[in-house]
Amino acid sequence: MASTRTATDTMKAFVIKGVGEVEVVEKSVPEPGPNEAVVRTTAALVCQSDVHTVKGAIPVDPNRTLGHEAVGVVHALGSAVEGFSEGDRVAVGAITPCFHCNYCQRGFASQCQGMLGGYKFTTQKDGNMAQYFLVNDAQANLAHIPDDLSDHMAVYATDMLSTGFMGAEHAELGIGDTVAVFAQGAVGLSATIGCRLLGAGLIIAVEAVPERQEIARQFGADEIVDFTQGDSVEQILELTGGEGVDAAIEAFGFPQTWDAAIKVTKPGGRISNIGYHGENPEPLEVPLEPFGNGMADKQIYGGLCPGGSERLRRIFRLMQTGKVDPTPMTTHEFGFDEIERAFAMMQSKDDGIIKPLIHFD
Amino acid sequence: MASTRTATDTMKAFVIKGVGEVEVVEKSVPEPGPNEAVVRTTAALVCQSDVHTVKGAIPVDPNRTLGHEAVGVVHALGSAVEGFSEGDRVAVGAITPCFHCNYCQRGFASQCQGMLGGYKFTTQKDGNMAQYFLVNDAQANLAHIPDDLSDHMAVYATDMLSTGFMGAEHAELGIGDTVAVFAQGAVGLSATIGCRLLGAGLIIAVEAVPERQEIARQFGADEIVDFTQGDSVEQILELTGGEGVDAAIEAFGFPQTWDAAIKVTKPGGRISNIGYHGENPEPLEVPLEPFGNGMADKQIYGGLCPGGSERLRRIFRLMQTGKVDPTPMTTHEFGFDEIERAFAMMQSKDDGIIKPLIHFD
Amino acid sequence: MASTRTATDTMKAFVIKGVGEVEVVEKSVPEPGPNEAVVRTTAALVCQSDVHTVKGAIPVDPNRTLGHEAVGVVHALGSAVEGFSEGDRVAVGAITPCFHCNYCQRGFASQCQGMLGGYKFTTQKDGNMAQYFLVNDAQANLAHIPDDLSDHMAVYATDMLSTGFMGAEHAELGIGDTVAVFAQGAVGLSATIGCRLLGAGLIIAVEAVPERQEIARQFGADEIVDFTQGDSVEQILELTGGEGVDAAIEAFGFPQTWDAAIKVTKPGGRISNIGYHGENPEPLEVPLEPFGNGMADKQIYGGLCPGGSERLRRIFRLMQTGKVDPTPMTTHEFGFDEIERAFAMMQSKDDGIIKPLIHFD
Amino acid sequence: MASTRTATDTMKAFVIKGVGEVEVVEKSVPEPGPNEAVVRTTAALVCQSDVHTVKGAIPVDPNRTLGHEAVGVVHALGSAVEGFSEGDRVAVGAITPCFHCNYCQRGFASQCQGMLGGYKFTTQKDGNMAQYFLVNDAQANLAHIPDDLSDHMAVYATDMLSTGFMGAEHAELGIGDTVAVFAQGAVGLSATIGCRLLGAGLIIAVEAVPERQEIARQFGADEIVDFTQGDSVEQILELTGGEGVDAAIEAFGFPQTWDAAIKVTKPGGRISNIGYHGENPEPLEVPLEPFGNGMADKQIYGGLCPGGSERLRRIFRLMQTGKVDPTPMTTHEFGFDEIERAFAMMQSKDDGIIKPLIHFD
Repeated sequence: MASTRTATDTMKAFVIKGVGEVEVVEKSVPEPGPNEAVVRTTAALVCQSDVHTVKGAIPVDPNRTLGHEAVGVVHALGSAVEGFSEGDRVAVGAITPCFHCNYCQRGFASQCQGMLGGYKFTTQKDGNMAQYFLVNDAQANLAHIPDDLSDHMAVYATDMLSTGFMGAEHAELGIGDTVAVFAQGAVGLSATIGCRLLGAGLIIAVEAVPERQEIARQFGADEIVDFTQGDSVEQILELTGGEGVDAAIEAFGFPQTWDAAIKVTKPGGRISNIGYHGENPEPLEVPLEPFGNGMADKQIYGGLCPGGSERLRRIFRLMQTGKVDPTPMTTHEFGFDEIERAFAMMQSKDDGIIKPLIHFD
Repeated sequence: MASTRTATDTMKAFVIKGVGEVEVVEKSVPEPGPNEAVVRTTAALVCQSDVHTVKGAIPVDPNRTLGHEAVGVVHALGSAVEGFSEGDRVAVGAITPCFHCNYCQRGFASQCQGMLGGYKFTTQKDGNMAQYFLVNDAQANLAHIPDDLSDHMAVYATDMLSTGFMGAEHAELGIGDTVAVFAQGAVGLSATIGCRLLGAGLIIAVEAVPERQEIARQFGADEIVDFTQGDSVEQILELTGGEGVDAAIEAFGFPQTWDAAIKVTKPGGRISNIGYHGENPEPLEVPLEPFGNGMADKQIYGGLCPGGSERLRRIFRLMQTGKVDPTPMTTHEFGFDEIERAFAMMQSKDDGIIKPLIHFD
Repeated sequence: MASTRTATDTMKAFVIKGVGEVEVVEKSVPEPGPNEAVVRTTAALVCQSDVHTVKGAIPVDPNRTLGHEAVGVVHALGSAVEGFSEGDRVAVGAITPCFHCNYCQRGFASQCQGMLGGYKFTTQKDGNMAQYFLVNDAQANLAHIPDDLSDHMAVYATDMLSTGFMGAEHAELGIGDTVAVFAQGAVGLSATIGCRLLGAGLIIAVEAVPERQEIARQFGADEIVDFTQGDSVEQILELTGGEGVDAAIEAFGFPQTWDAAIKVTKPGGRISNIGYHGENPEPLEVPLEPFGNGMADKQIYGGLCPGGSERLRRIFRLMQTGKVDPTPMTTHEFGFDEIERAFAMMQSKDDGIIKPLIHFD
Repeated sequence: MASTRTATDTMKAFVIKGVGEVEVVEKSVPEPGPNEAVVRTTAALVCQSDVHTVKGAIPVDPNRTLGHEAVGVVHALGSAVEGFSEGDRVAVGAITPCFHCNYCQRGFASQCQGMLGGYKFTTQKDGNMAQYFLVNDAQANLAHIPDDLSDHMAVYATDMLSTGFMGAEHAELGIGDTVAVFAQGAVGLSATIGCRLLGAGLIIAVEAVPERQEIARQFGADEIVDFTQGDSVEQILELTGGEGVDAAIEAFGFPQTWDAAIKVTKPGGRISNIGYHGENPEPLEVPLEPFGNGMADKQIYGGLCPGGSERLRRIFRLMQTGKVDPTPMTTHEFGFDEIERAFAMMQSKDDGIIKPLIHFD
């Protein structure tokens, strides 16, 4: 396969033209540097983050390829990359840290080389909603997909599950703890799975859409709070005998859910934010009384999806032993030639869409 | 009920007469001091620790009542105990710390006032295999049993689940990690549940008895290693592609399983001991090469069942939401009048006994 | 001594009459319940928290005794308190948890029985700016003062050092980390000591008052940032090569320092709040860009002084081995008969006052 | 400088010829691959680990260059290494992980690619007791030496301080805790500094050599226990009122000190091993009673020096702000032409040698 590649090889890529504008264009197939790899995409998911990007929340160069949730097969390998062969089935995390800088060595690889710096696809270089994509620091960022896992399963590990699980990890649950998860989109649903896996005794999912409530139950939610049926804070306090939860996960990215997350968490509890607040016009507010005027022993943590192959490997293991199946989140499937329609649906949230799977064959 | 108690009230208690000798005797029903409570026992489990005690492993005064896994109803309350009423259904942990001493304040309540000092039943005062028992520091050690939980469910929280979960907690699993649990007696089986609850991706249970293997699978074991079919270390290395597990839990209390637990754990991994090694004639050995000559970044932790009502409450919550059902470990049931026969079976391990439930009605 | 006590014994106590009003009144010497102790006060410090209380920030019953930083000798002991004798020199933390409730058992004793509930002096019962005071849960809250420590040294352990050290503990410093401490009042100065003790490589103290700057240097500050000489955020970024600090401690309780603390902390860093924000009219604000729109892996923690004797014992040890001497913070000394003047100075911050020591002899 | 290098450039290197034999030989100056760097050595320290290696404890190929504690200037850089220039003063840790493998990504970089695998100098490739040396994964392993630090200061960060500090880190000290450090060689002395930096309230150093006792006091030891004057366990128990220490650091590598470390640690305490036990003929023994028969809540951790530039940078900061000065450990200085004599002294421990500094000019 490698032998037939030439300098004039081209591919199709789904790019942002400018704020509010997307398009499929032709680009050259990338060539790997010594520490890089090129992957031929086989499946991808459309991410809400790209909707934010196209709205203008994150400024990027025009013509930058979108996408950061993809799997494929190794197409070409840099000279210094070992342990992989062309044709290997691989996954690549949405976040692709260098693992060498101060931030990475310190354990904050998502903040590689500075604020949010591990998030390189689209924001720093072309994304992977294309027929081929370039992987930086491939030795650390390529993960073999086990034979018994489909692309459909594996692609969820690249962002949704990893981010949702991180939300649950930062909830720092003790065994049997109570937790509330605000919003059951794909990230919130993944956080619900994460809470089930990490010891929660009572999982309260806040969601108004019946289809999402249904998946939430299937993924482990013990109680559903529908905020259209009453104040979610009051409902959660009632479900917990008035004391609130040990931890709250904010997976929505709105001031109201942030505020509610702080309010429903009891003293000594954790608020774990995985919602993107970049579209808020104002700073987030920490309500004084529920925060004990600064002294309630509450912890607020806001994280970005962790990167690297080691974590992917652990998520794959959970799938292989049957503990995690994210595919019910796939509400729609498209060919890559339909990507513009899929993206438009993610923007409009039509037809109850949660995640659309994109096939590249 | 309280009004009818008199100084001459007596009860039956199952005691150790001396090394190797047990008997049911009459004793006075205890009276509570200001911080104590007296519980009328309704259900109990026989614990292997008492078998060790009767063998002479832990020296205790003759005529001391055995037992530390029991639930019941409040019979009498000390003047300083609040929030409970006579007649309330309650559970009491096997370990009943004071929560006030230096060790307790530091977070090591099992070591209350010194080595293993939280373990008071039988070793420091009468145990609870009796019709009534005294609870020290009742404010912290009495936990209400939720209405929707049977005594049978609740009594498992007092020791087996709490100890097994602690084994899993000290395994410090990352999400998706691999773990091996050595031996699937009641404590090992509970550790298997704990690993399932705390993020394990692959749980390998080491056990040779088919009935226990079966319960292990039901409780979450992904793989069973039968040490009668080959060296358990080799089998576990094979199941993990040669690299070993992220953590091993030693729930047997034998030099061979301790040694194997260290050997199957990969560098950077945790060995969590919950086996009782008091019957070993020799010190435990740490094999040099698997321990990296002291530098493999392996962590060894040996803990004692945590006490206190807060933990019981969290375990009850896991039962209430259907995440934990320990009752398959109950292989036999007896009335308290059959306690000597039940104890003899625990000594002989006859008839595939795992845990015998004792009824007090 | 005990033999001469009678039901009509009275004492002087410094109380809040209403918002803005304080007075010395006569009260009965308290009598201990079974788990309590009565201490005869020998030395105390006036705390800024009482200034907040008198301003009306924390609603309390009229005639409630102020004060929560005191040491003395045991005057009377409840029947269930062991290990102490009348006449023993003792210290009692500002926070006096029960150590038995769910919050306490979970490790959040400052939030005993609910939000800020470990803070009992003045807010829930009489404080200790009086000739005698009552100690709840004395077994856990009385700490012997070692013979080689003066009352003057010991009284700083009850609140200032414990709170400041907590601020440093929640900064979760790695060895050699950079940290900024906002404001060098008594709590901020204590946090500076804490950072020196807990591994900081570079300690930046933000303070404009020359006398406080001088003590800060003496206590371990490597750099002083004077916010009257330019924006403190810019100065701290410059001192850290533009990257910010690993952790910031907010010890002032103002929106501006809270905001600055978040801004100077680099991605993956910790913001540890020990300032009291109860006088702010508005919620605290989390600036979006420095918080990575919720994804900068920053952690915000706001805690309340930990209570209990075990911690006091550790702070005393640091004094005994010469590692900590807080007495330079004592800018003024008064007899208890001058308490109203001392309190007025704490309100007005006259004469460069930091902490006034009150003698009771 | 780079322009004058040719394929025939040679250098002197200090190598192991076979068990018990060392020699200075001529070797080619190495050439860097894309991710590597070549450093011209300016200063180095002789390490006890090399004495172990030459004794045959670690099997290595004949003619392998010894040494892993060195600093120098960048001589040549691989094409993919950024942020460094030829001529830059740099330090390189004794442990040089890839930071990309599963172990590294998981936070156990010392165990890079498997057991002890981060330790590459001499064991996997030529060491750095040579005029030039090759640095793998240079992006992560080269650290700039600040202008205000001498080579003499900086070279101690590469192993001694990093290892000793790790010993203190795994002691997991709470503020004011008690700790015993067994043996005050260079690693034990560094652990003593680490304990002083990380919150210890009482540091007990176990050492019999007066000169080492003296440096230990200078570095922060509060008490010295001389094991020639009585049993060290008994002396430490006496110094701690019979209760033992919160943590013990074993920095000697002998069965007796390992055993004593477990015995002097109180329940709930940590035993942190940094001694090399590869010369023991037998497994290490864990004494049963002090280990609570497996249930004393004691934690044993044995680690290998952490690698990477980020940690070096933090240690340099501690030196820059005057908190750490390791140079009193340098008892002798030699030119590189005297390396054989220096090494012989490290083998014989003649003349009270602790660390000999080797100059390369």
